[in-house]
Amino acid sequence: MAYTINTDTILALATPQGIGAIGVIRLSGENAIQLCNTVFGTKSLKKIDLNAAASHTLHFGVIHDGEVIIDEVLVSLFKAPHSYTSENTVEISCHGSPYIQQQIIQLFIRHGARMASQGEFTLRAFLNGKLDLSQAEAVADLISSNSATSHQIAIQQMRGGFSSKIKLLRQNLVDFASLIELELDFSEEDVEFADRSDLKKLVNSIQKIVQRLIDSFEVGNVIKNGIPVAIVGKPNAGKSTLLNVLLEEDRAIVSDIPGTTRDVIEDEINIDGVLFRVIDTAGIRETFDIIESIGVEKTFEQIKLSSIAIYLFDVHEISVSELKQIISEIQPHLHHSQLVLVANKIDKEDMEYTYREFSEFKDMLFISAKERVGIDELKKHLVHLFDNSMVNVTETIVTNARHVEALRHTNVALIKVLEGLNNNVTGDFLAMDIRTSLHHLGEITGEISSDDLLANIFSRFCIGK
Amino acid sequence: MAYTINTDTILALATPQGIGAIGVIRLSGENAIQLCNTVFGTKSLKKIDLNAAASHTLHFGVIHDGEVIIDEVLVSLFKAPHSYTSENTVEISCHGSPYIQQQIIQLFIRHGARMASQGEFTLRAFLNGKLDLSQAEAVADLISSNSATSHQIAIQQMRGGFSSKIKLLRQNLVDFASLIELELDFSEEDVEFADRSDLKKLVNSIQKIVQRLIDSFEVGNVIKNGIPVAIVGKPNAGKSTLLNVLLEEDRAIVSDIPGTTRDVIEDEINIDGVLFRVIDTAGIRETFDIIESIGVEKTFEQIKLSSIAIYLFDVHEISVSELKQIISEIQPHLHHSQLVLVANKIDKEDMEYTYREFSEFKDMLFISAKERVGIDELKKHLVHLFDNSMVNVTETIVTNARHVEALRHTNVALIKVLEGLNNNVTGDFLAMDIRTSLHHLGEITGEISSDDLLANIFSRFCIGK
Repeated sequence: MAYTINTDTILALATPQGIGAIGVIRLSGENAIQLCNTVFGTKSLKKIDLNAAASHTLHFGVIHDGEVIIDEVLVSLFKAPHSYTSENTVEISCHGSPYIQQQIIQLFIRHGARMASQGEFTLRAFLNGKLDLSQAEAVADLISSNSATSHQIAIQQMRGGFSSKIKLLRQNLVDFASLIELELDFSEEDVEFADRSDLKKLVNSIQKIVQRLIDSFEVGNVIKNGIPVAIVGKPNAGKSTLLNVLLEEDRAIVSDIPGTTRDVIEDEINIDGVLFRVIDTAGIRETFDIIESIGVEKTFEQIKLSSIAIYLFDVHEISVSELKQIISEIQPHLHHSQLVLVANKIDKEDMEYTYREFSEFKDMLFISAKERVGIDELKKHLVHLFDNSMVNVTETIVTNARHVEALRHTNVALIKVLEGLNNNVTGDFLAMDIRTSLHHLGEITGEISSDDLLANIFSRFCIGK
Repeated sequence: MAYTINTDTILALATPQGIGAIGVIRLSGENAIQLCNTVFGTKSLKKIDLNAAASHTLHFGVIHDGEVIIDEVLVSLFKAPHSYTSENTVEISCHGSPYIQQQIIQLFIRHGARMASQGEFTLRAFLNGKLDLSQAEAVADLISSNSATSHQIAIQQMRGGFSSKIKLLRQNLVDFASLIELELDFSEEDVEFADRSDLKKLVNSIQKIVQRLIDSFEVGNVIKNGIPVAIVGKPNAGKSTLLNVLLEEDRAIVSDIPGTTRDVIEDEINIDGVLFRVIDTAGIRETFDIIESIGVEKTFEQIKLSSIAIYLFDVHEISVSELKQIISEIQPHLHHSQLVLVANKIDKEDMEYTYREFSEFKDMLFISAKERVGIDELKKHLVHLFDNSMVNVTETIVTNARHVEALRHTNVALIKVLEGLNNNVTGDFLAMDIRTSLHHLGEITGEISSDDLLANIFSRFCIGK
């Protein structure tokens, strides 16, 4: 561990910028409590000795600059090692005025604290052994999570679910390595302590787990960024109306609770906690006089990028044979994505005959985007398709590109070990590849790390975390 | 007091909207702790009984919806009556993700809490006698304060400085009234318990204090909204450059501290904690080809609106007699405002002769807006002028329009009392006017209040306060 552990007092506004009822300023460091003592007192400016108070207690008083009172505040006291960073920590809950927050921060800086850099509180938690690296990364994921699935994966990772899995793999490999290394010590005597077929089985099972974790990244990535959905169809099929209905319903749910808002991104739709991302929303909203040949090219491109492709059509403007023709044209472009046939405009005419006409298409959905009929069924179907695609995935899902990179390196090394075992190479060659795989697994939890890596990871954080 | 005191559990996000390291959700009400107990537990979902814990303690754990963990949080516990609202209160410090905050709020609503309306926490604090009305209003002022002066006035008012002054006045009047009322009880015997000349002295001194408080509002208003400054002068005098230099320096100070920002408003300049507001910044920034006659009209209008008028001129383009002529033209429009003569462009030529030429203008400032020379002196001078204008004001400054309105009504009634005393009217007439003045004084601190008034005051608050 090359990163030096600083113990100077760092501080930052931990709550978002702006006006609110309260704001929280966080200080951490060996002298954080001492520092707070110098500017914190009772309403009549008598000293409050936080050193004498117990950890995890709350103290009402004022922050003052000499005789000038800056604000009435509540101080939360956390004594080392019982804090987020494992250092002495105070959190000052002041009034939610940017002016006051600035005054308090300036006051502490004059008294010797310094502004924390991005993620520095969590970096200290990591350096002090409170969290491993993958848990620390989950904190940032958690803060930016915006759907039930991405949220649950981040929570699980933060609570160490992923780390313990990696650590177990690593321990198995270490046991294996120690047997091999033992052989090397006695190499002149040509003994084999480890039964090669047992070893092969062990490495094989580890490599399979690693491979499964790598495979889970595709799903993990999709969960984090939203499941790509293509809404395709001819001009006038109602694509733009359907998109708006889906977006509006999402927003309506969000605005149900006063005082809470969510940054609604134009192409993201959250259905029952699953995030979908509509491809080329701009294109869908374009005016309809696109030359059709360009439209077809574009359609195939969108389908290729999607996990779910909705083919939307005006049910009164299409025949069964025409629809079959279209499906056969789309099919070769589907690759990984699943096709959903959606018949629109069922509000326009009596549908009895039409339903019968299309009865052979079992999974076809009938909607009226304009009248919002069948939208709930469509949404349920999308979530259902997502659930199905998850069936073959282990319960641990990798969502972090750095982790999957380390896993890929591990995998390469493990495959070399397996090849070595098959070819009866000597123990020293095996040991080298095992060490490589151990190194890469260790990168995930931070048992192996470099300054550059840490700087890169923690710069993703907001200041104050 | 007609307002009913609700004790149901209200909740709101107390920190600003958006992504940050942490967010705080506040719950208050008779059952707030009970409610929190049902969804709060240890990391392994064991129950944590907050009822058994002491007030003013911090508890680490998770918020969970059955088996699903929503977030790891810190709960601050405040037991009635030792909280802001004087009710049982818990503050949940969770990760600063809007998604998570929404999930937690929804969970509590499902368990029977309801969203707080604007200012409802502070309203409860008022109804439970934790704050009087003027102190409650100061909380809103404090949150929106954006200069050292407005901040200090709000702090003083929140801490009860203004209230105690009003209460003292009221007590004096009550004492006076009781003497008069005593006379009324014995009116048939024609006794005078109260020495009329003593009474006159007392009411006179109270009325003078009330008048001074009313007068302070002009300053108070100016402090709250910024001291209006007019920057006037001919085209090409450098008004736009000076304005930009002043605005930029303000902004530079603010952005010195990473992680803090202040909403910089285009026409506000904060100098050493005093807020100045430049009149017609848009006009100053306009291109220079305004017909000059319109310019002059406009100039006088701006001066009339200002407390400080800066007359800026190109020192190389003006003679002493010309300047005197201009001053004499401006003078009749000054009213309350103070004139500052600022000679610009001292960087352009050797200034020795020029300095001597203008030496008779004692307070004239010489600057180069372009080269940022003399700007500090100008800023110091502006603050100095502000300090001077404050000399005749009592230390208590009224900043609230509602308060000054109540004081004006009080004043009218007191003057009637004085007139009555001078004309030897009978005690019952005096008593009526005194009751009127008592009523209006009581409105300030909320001893007298109505539902409409309270609704109006607390709707100014943000949700969560």
